[in-house]
Amino acid sequence: MAYDYTPYLDEVERELRDLLAVREEAVAPLYQMMQYHLGWLDARFRPVEAPRGKRLRPLLCLLACEAVGGDWRQAVPAASAIELLHNFSLLHDDIEDRSETRRHRPTVWSLWGVPQGINTGDAMWAVSRLAMLRLAERGYDAETILRAIRRLDEACVELCTGQYLDLAFEQAEMISLEEYERMIAGKTAALLSASVAIGAILGGATDAVVEAYAGFGHELGLAFQIVDDILGIWGDPTVTGKSTASDILERKKALPALYALHWERKRGRNDLAALYAKPSLSVEDIPQVLLLLERAGAEEYARSQARNHHQRSLQYLQATQIHHPAQDALRDLSYSLVERVF
Amino acid sequence: MAYDYTPYLDEVERELRDLLAVREEAVAPLYQMMQYHLGWLDARFRPVEAPRGKRLRPLLCLLACEAVGGDWRQAVPAASAIELLHNFSLLHDDIEDRSETRRHRPTVWSLWGVPQGINTGDAMWAVSRLAMLRLAERGYDAETILRAIRRLDEACVELCTGQYLDLAFEQAEMISLEEYERMIAGKTAALLSASVAIGAILGGATDAVVEAYAGFGHELGLAFQIVDDILGIWGDPTVTGKSTASDILERKKALPALYALHWERKRGRNDLAALYAKPSLSVEDIPQVLLLLERAGAEEYARSQARNHHQRSLQYLQATQIHHPAQDALRDLSYSLVERVF
Repeated sequence: MAYDYTPYLDEVERELRDLLAVREEAVAPLYQMMQYHLGWLDARFRPVEAPRGKRLRPLLCLLACEAVGGDWRQAVPAASAIELLHNFSLLHDDIEDRSETRRHRPTVWSLWGVPQGINTGDAMWAVSRLAMLRLAERGYDAETILRAIRRLDEACVELCTGQYLDLAFEQAEMISLEEYERMIAGKTAALLSASVAIGAILGGATDAVVEAYAGFGHELGLAFQIVDDILGIWGDPTVTGKSTASDILERKKALPALYALHWERKRGRNDLAALYAKPSLSVEDIPQVLLLLERAGAEEYARSQARNHHQRSLQYLQATQIHHPAQDALRDLSYSLVERVF
Repeated sequence: MAYDYTPYLDEVERELRDLLAVREEAVAPLYQMMQYHLGWLDARFRPVEAPRGKRLRPLLCLLACEAVGGDWRQAVPAASAIELLHNFSLLHDDIEDRSETRRHRPTVWSLWGVPQGINTGDAMWAVSRLAMLRLAERGYDAETILRAIRRLDEACVELCTGQYLDLAFEQAEMISLEEYERMIAGKTAALLSASVAIGAILGGATDAVVEAYAGFGHELGLAFQIVDDILGIWGDPTVTGKSTASDILERKKALPALYALHWERKRGRNDLAALYAKPSLSVEDIPQVLLLLERAGAEEYARSQARNHHQRSLQYLQATQIHHPAQDALRDLSYSLVERVF
């Protein structure tokens, strides 16, 4: 029987709504823009049921807390803080990538402009900080709260370094596969790792167990990002919420393209490199790009990389030596993230 | 004899440089862009001595710590965190206001683009968080650190609400003087208030004394912003680092203009309102705007408002009933901020 995530998701949703409730009329639209981004309001600030994202990071946090023997309900403020932090980064990413659509809806900056978009992201991060401090009301001692905060703050720095590399790589003709992994370690794996580690900390785990969970989250994050790269090229737009092969048109340094570029270089070819060197790519170029990716075996390579990282994440999970239904749920959750491409 | 701020400034500078040191070659430029913003590097990342800002907030923090009997050296990580937080907000403000110059130099976004500009701001905030956590190495207990963190995090939310209002008011035809004060309370006063309050907390002050210092910082912040508004119109460009009357050209809802608009409305006039309703203002319009501001007595009004808030800040300072050279320095510092227009 599939694990029922509803109680966790409901509690997080309740906490998030309380954190982002309008408490002062003068600044209501700031909070309403955040609520819009989270899928609770439409663009005219009327209640709506829009896609909300998977709430993956809060689930990882709460399940880890429970798996190590903690009461997951006490950790809800941290899970909510993590979700807000993740969404702050999405708000800014959308501006940085000029993405006009997220989860099938116009992005905040495309509706209210870049200045308000930047500031709405900043505000969401600020509220995320206050969410962490609510752990004090759940009975955690100051030492434990600071440990959790430190983990999250270190992940924030990593997030920014990953984003820096992602933006810098757009200008680079070629990057190595190591550079790619460094980039996604910051952009994606750091926060997933922190989510599980914070759950374990708040559940009262030993340092060794916390580190094993952090390793699980890190490897899972790498696998997850590679899966995302694969779906960005071959995914179904009605599922991903992005236009077909948008990552190709933007010539992102996603793993499949990167691998194909390296594959060509080794063989003295430069068909894909020549296409990627054009001032811009059009929809007509996509079939050719797909053919070149296929010739290099890029999809297969990326899949195998995702599978390797997922396998390593499961080894970390096993190293915790914990047996608990929530632990099984963590493993199931990890499969659900990667099986989309297996 | 004037108080010597050098030891404070030197310690903060040392801490900031340590916090922003390049520790990983792959992401060096991210840290170098932050160092550029702080005036340590030029645009090609060569060491330089550029204007660095007044470091006002760290000074307020450290002096408050000392005035209440604490060892200011222990509070240096918090003072540094506050300065980084302030500079994060400048990095984002510059993008939101499309300002190409700050402290007589090109802004980060104008050199490296909006995406890297946003992310560099985010990174500076993230490093600011880690700076706060360094208080643990200075011997503070977790409870005290959390109290300081809470104060700073609440100021962050206020900062974002103030910035939201500032941006929203750009579109508004008219705002009330109360709305103006709410805006600058968030945009400027919140962080100044937190700076002094955090210093007092880290110096071991009682709650009542902490609140009195918070009130001092709040009122000083209001006075400081009004002074800034005055200088934005009548200030010397070689001192302010902005072009002459740039706030007029941008039709900012600064206090003098706002007061003049209200003054006109009460008298059934709309000369300034008509000018401000034009699609854009040019340098040729400036003399006319200055005449209309003078007719309304806008400069005098703004000066008196700044003076009132400064007086109230001094009353808060007196309410602490503290006598200490650092307390005198706080008072002197407050005068130095407002006397530029007295």
